[in-house]
Amino acid sequence: MCPQRLVLEHVTSRWGVLVLMALEERSYRFSELRREIGGVSEKMLAQTLQTLERDGVVHRDAKPVIPPRVDYSLTGLGREAAAQVRALADWTDRRLPEVKAARQAYDEVRAPEGP
Amino acid sequence: MCPQRLVLEHVTSRWGVLVLMALEERSYRFSELRREIGGVSEKMLAQTLQTLERDGVVHRDAKPVIPPRVDYSLTGLGREAAAQVRALADWTDRRLPEVKAARQAYDEVRAPEGP
Repeated sequence: MCPQRLVLEHVTSRWGVLVLMALEERSYRFSELRREIGGVSEKMLAQTLQTLERDGVVHRDAKPVIPPRVDYSLTGLGREAAAQVRALADWTDRRLPEVKAARQAYDEVRAPEGP
Repeated sequence: MCPQRLVLEHVTSRWGVLVLMALEERSYRFSELRREIGGVSEKMLAQTLQTLERDGVVHRDAKPVIPPRVDYSLTGLGREAAAQVRALADWTDRRLPEVKAARQAYDEVRAPEGP
């Protein structure tokens, strides 16, 4: 798989998109981010954040305090990625009615004939 | 899964991206398109085109000639999708050196200590 492909898959992954959209607003602690996104397991969110951190998109800031506090935010690269992904997600939202209508028309033509 | 998510997955899928990029240039017959994209099985390309046709993004034009001739092109919606996806793919290309550097730095910090 080409390396561009991998970056694209990370930022457009199910949780990748939601992490970028949340962190575009502000930085979050892990548990806060998990609540904000909703429906994501601890393991899956940790994995998503780690992948995005490794790509240089997310910054992980572990504060040396007790109890430990870890904040996640976007890097400059991450803000660019988030803007790109947001444009695509917004387009998808905007055009969803047309996509739904197209699907219905497609399925009707191919539906088995009634009695 | 929310319906926006599905549209996003279709247009950013591995073959979805490549189909959109190719059809942005011009319309293609099936076998031509398969050669142009490269590395895609007949079955997978047929499936990708069918999904994108159902979403209203790709237009399939079966000409009533012998031998049968089928042309694929983008709809208006498809040209919009292609432009969005191209922007994201271009961004990925442009920023790949930074992503690679970030990954290397990340992996070095976490590599096991030498002897």
